[in-house]
Amino acid sequence: MKIFKTIDAMRDFVMTARCEGKTVGLMPTLGGMHEGHFSLIRAARAACDVVVVSIFLNPTQFAPNEDLDAYPSTPHADCDACESLGVDAIFTPDVETMYPQGEATEVQVPALARHLCGKDRPIHFGGVCVVVSKLFNIIPAHKAFFGAKDYQQSAIIRKMVKDLNVDIEIVVCPTVRESDGLAMSSRNAYLSAEEREQAPALHGALQLAREMIASGEKDPNVVLDAMRNHLATHAPAGEIDYVNLFDPDTLEDVATCDGPVHSALAVRFGGARLIDNMRVDGV
Amino acid sequence: MKIFKTIDAMRDFVMTARCEGKTVGLMPTLGGMHEGHFSLIRAARAACDVVVVSIFLNPTQFAPNEDLDAYPSTPHADCDACESLGVDAIFTPDVETMYPQGEATEVQVPALARHLCGKDRPIHFGGVCVVVSKLFNIIPAHKAFFGAKDYQQSAIIRKMVKDLNVDIEIVVCPTVRESDGLAMSSRNAYLSAEEREQAPALHGALQLAREMIASGEKDPNVVLDAMRNHLATHAPAGEIDYVNLFDPDTLEDVATCDGPVHSALAVRFGGARLIDNMRVDGV
Repeated sequence: MKIFKTIDAMRDFVMTARCEGKTVGLMPTLGGMHEGHFSLIRAARAACDVVVVSIFLNPTQFAPNEDLDAYPSTPHADCDACESLGVDAIFTPDVETMYPQGEATEVQVPALARHLCGKDRPIHFGGVCVVVSKLFNIIPAHKAFFGAKDYQQSAIIRKMVKDLNVDIEIVVCPTVRESDGLAMSSRNAYLSAEEREQAPALHGALQLAREMIASGEKDPNVVLDAMRNHLATHAPAGEIDYVNLFDPDTLEDVATCDGPVHSALAVRFGGARLIDNMRVDGV
Repeated sequence: MKIFKTIDAMRDFVMTARCEGKTVGLMPTLGGMHEGHFSLIRAARAACDVVVVSIFLNPTQFAPNEDLDAYPSTPHADCDACESLGVDAIFTPDVETMYPQGEATEVQVPALARHLCGKDRPIHFGGVCVVVSKLFNIIPAHKAFFGAKDYQQSAIIRKMVKDLNVDIEIVVCPTVRESDGLAMSSRNAYLSAEEREQAPALHGALQLAREMIASGEKDPNVVLDAMRNHLATHAPAGEIDYVNLFDPDTLEDVATCDGPVHSALAVRFGGARLIDNMRVDGV
């Protein structure tokens, strides 16, 4: 497994592979890898000749009041895991390599970023769009793999890629969950024992929405009230940032639950802000 | 010479050339080609193995009150000229191919776009950044050639390419002028005979600034007043949009003319808005 820290060497590796007729898969990460990341690497390994993992804790997608400094960083474990999963190359640049200074270019999908997590995190998706654009230009892969847990992120990246004719197929892989339903996340490490016990209520609320809609409930407000009650009962330590039922493409709130409906929610447990989502219309 | 109208065929052509070890040069145009464009094609021809010219009158860089509908369109003459200059491929997509509908991604360099032409044309450079991003993704060339006449455009594109790690070298070629100094422009076709006679005053004002600074004038306001007087005298039919003296990198107005100074101006003659620029500090 090769480890690249410079942009030119990383790009040369990928362009050489491409020109040899190999398909290249990219999995961008912030580090702090867990089983959710590993499942993405396995999907890339199965689909591509060459698998590249980027490990870069991108500062520009964190606001000053967010958890950049606390974010789990486990570079040695990450590299070992990548090696054992058959990754061909890791890209692990310094912040100075990615942001030499004086950056002024903005990439945004405002129509999708203003919903859901974008309300609480107004600079987040702009930072994501810029760093993903950079990574796609440094690592011109055929396919890039993202996790379904970050639904809004993958919706925004898919839209950006389509609108700008980026020549990369975005592959979204299913959320990996603990046995009690909690979605795998680097941020689960922040939870106290009590919070960890309550955290599966996010998944429970999503399942409840799915069941209610399957049973014929069409009124989004009735479903949302039930989801909030579920959280209040099963996760009293959690503070709801948002619970939404929305159109899977536009991310706009739905007026009725008789078409395509996706649900997403964000709940804070102390310093840990957990998110989860699910298609809830039975599709 | 090949002519491509679809994105996939255009990209395949370029990727095949790249993988054969050939260098690829791109020259994006709006069509309506003149000697200024031809000089860029010659520069690309001299520097690259394969030369691609895109001809696409991009609607998103024109505001509703601007001259999209009047913009010169000479597709047959453009193709003939490209062929005779040794162009290898032309990319001439329909609007529907480039903008299938529902686009929502923004690419901007606000710190550079808010000056000069960006004040009169608030949506212009956003449209340029998006279409150039798309073209760079469709035609992944080694070098892209732009004219120095559009100084702010090339400054913004260079910044965008650097910030996003786009793997394309931006080559800026000198402005081509008529014998009386008027910068070649598709929009010169809009000028009446009287306006055409007065239009070289733009170049004259820039030369005057250069002479004054070379003679030791340090006060930008003195130089700007002289430039405006020159225009009022020699181009009474013209209405000044702006005349500026600015830092070549930041595009911010200079407080004194004893460092690097660039000058740019925009003057309207009826429906024709002409621009020109020059490095005026003697470098």
